[in-house]
Amino acid sequence: MRHIRLTVQYDGTDYAGFQRQDNAFTVQEELENRLATLLEDDVQIQSASRTDAGVHALGQICTLKTETPIPLEGLLTAMNHILPQAVSIAGCDEVTPDFHPQYDAAGKLYSYRILNRHLPSPFINRYAWHIETPLNVQLMQAAARTLIGEHDFASFMASGGSVKSTVRRIDRLDLVREGELVETRIRADGFLYMMVRIIVGTLVEIGRGDRDVSEMADILRACDRTKAGVTAPPQGLCLVRVDYDE
Amino acid sequence: MRHIRLTVQYDGTDYAGFQRQDNAFTVQEELENRLATLLEDDVQIQSASRTDAGVHALGQICTLKTETPIPLEGLLTAMNHILPQAVSIAGCDEVTPDFHPQYDAAGKLYSYRILNRHLPSPFINRYAWHIETPLNVQLMQAAARTLIGEHDFASFMASGGSVKSTVRRIDRLDLVREGELVETRIRADGFLYMMVRIIVGTLVEIGRGDRDVSEMADILRACDRTKAGVTAPPQGLCLVRVDYDE
Repeated sequence: MRHIRLTVQYDGTDYAGFQRQDNAFTVQEELENRLATLLEDDVQIQSASRTDAGVHALGQICTLKTETPIPLEGLLTAMNHILPQAVSIAGCDEVTPDFHPQYDAAGKLYSYRILNRHLPSPFINRYAWHIETPLNVQLMQAAARTLIGEHDFASFMASGGSVKSTVRRIDRLDLVREGELVETRIRADGFLYMMVRIIVGTLVEIGRGDRDVSEMADILRACDRTKAGVTAPPQGLCLVRVDYDE
Repeated sequence: MRHIRLTVQYDGTDYAGFQRQDNAFTVQEELENRLATLLEDDVQIQSASRTDAGVHALGQICTLKTETPIPLEGLLTAMNHILPQAVSIAGCDEVTPDFHPQYDAAGKLYSYRILNRHLPSPFINRYAWHIETPLNVQLMQAAARTLIGEHDFASFMASGGSVKSTVRRIDRLDLVREGELVETRIRADGFLYMMVRIIVGTLVEIGRGDRDVSEMADILRACDRTKAGVTAPPQGLCLVRVDYDE
């Protein structure tokens, strides 16, 4: 039995998230159905992250088991030929049976993009949150610094998650404006349910001037979701990379 | 009665082209329905170009008549607020009653993008033709030069068009490679049905090495669609700009 690791990219717009569900079509189901045809066997996919409905990925990591003799190079080409336009495989390799894409992940890097200008764009809005009010990115960056390090992020978790601990370590949280695009890059050892989107929603309230930079420390300390800002919409979010200690 | 000109942008992927049709949803119908709600009256849209199913636009030009007293600036904002993610208005102004977006057009500029690399991308393939074979862009550019100027382009017209003359003047036809993207920019005083896509399809056969550069002159002279290459798929095509003598 071969254990194959895939780097998966997808435009999440038309999927109900990554993880298989009853009554809704997900990226996992798309992959399992298409790859089962190719590999002529049932396929069960495990993933590093359950991205939510409408969230994109440049570097989702998945594994599957197969008896196929197809070499890796041919497998990569064949998988891409049978997948739809919205999903592709950027790379594949073989891993040991004990590798698990979620439990072995040392960290994940997400990007959240905002289109910050008066007019929308059909080509950008699909991959960004459109905000017309000019954002003060310097204030957002100052507030973001409060969150770097190991903290209890309970204020930034939506209900519906089931975790033992709400402590996580953010080791990178940068905001960069390039013209009309404001991109937040955030890396942590793990993320709570909706954590990136609630952090971005809170930063946006600060960038708009609706809240003061100093409030971020109070929100973090409160460990209370109702103290934080809105949840940013899904289309701006992208899972960029999953890191492993190897 | 006010005569309003709109610059319209759309992601054509999920529309059956621009022009209103029975039994299929088009950009025109989307605009007419949404703007009728805003303007509280029937709206009839005229456009510079009937883009085909799956073709995009950055600068489609449309006109409509309205009695609304809303000033232009407010109209632009309001229209964008009621349009879906895939359609937006980049600008609007008032024109004289005799202005016609199609008949007054002096020329149109189209872009055709090719993603030329082994692996597909869910974020690029929606807006480009994915071709795995490396293309020789210098050969394509050499063949493209044959088409510049005033010619009978009957070889590059799909059946289904109804025109008096198949003579057109191409005044610009450039190919540029930027990394893995190959972009063709073509400007003419007008285009026959599927003309850009048949030209690109023919250029690709030359860029792949399947046909010689010198064949382009023979194809042009033949005035016979069967001599030209395949019709490139719609998703790479974008109406960039319509020019008027003003």
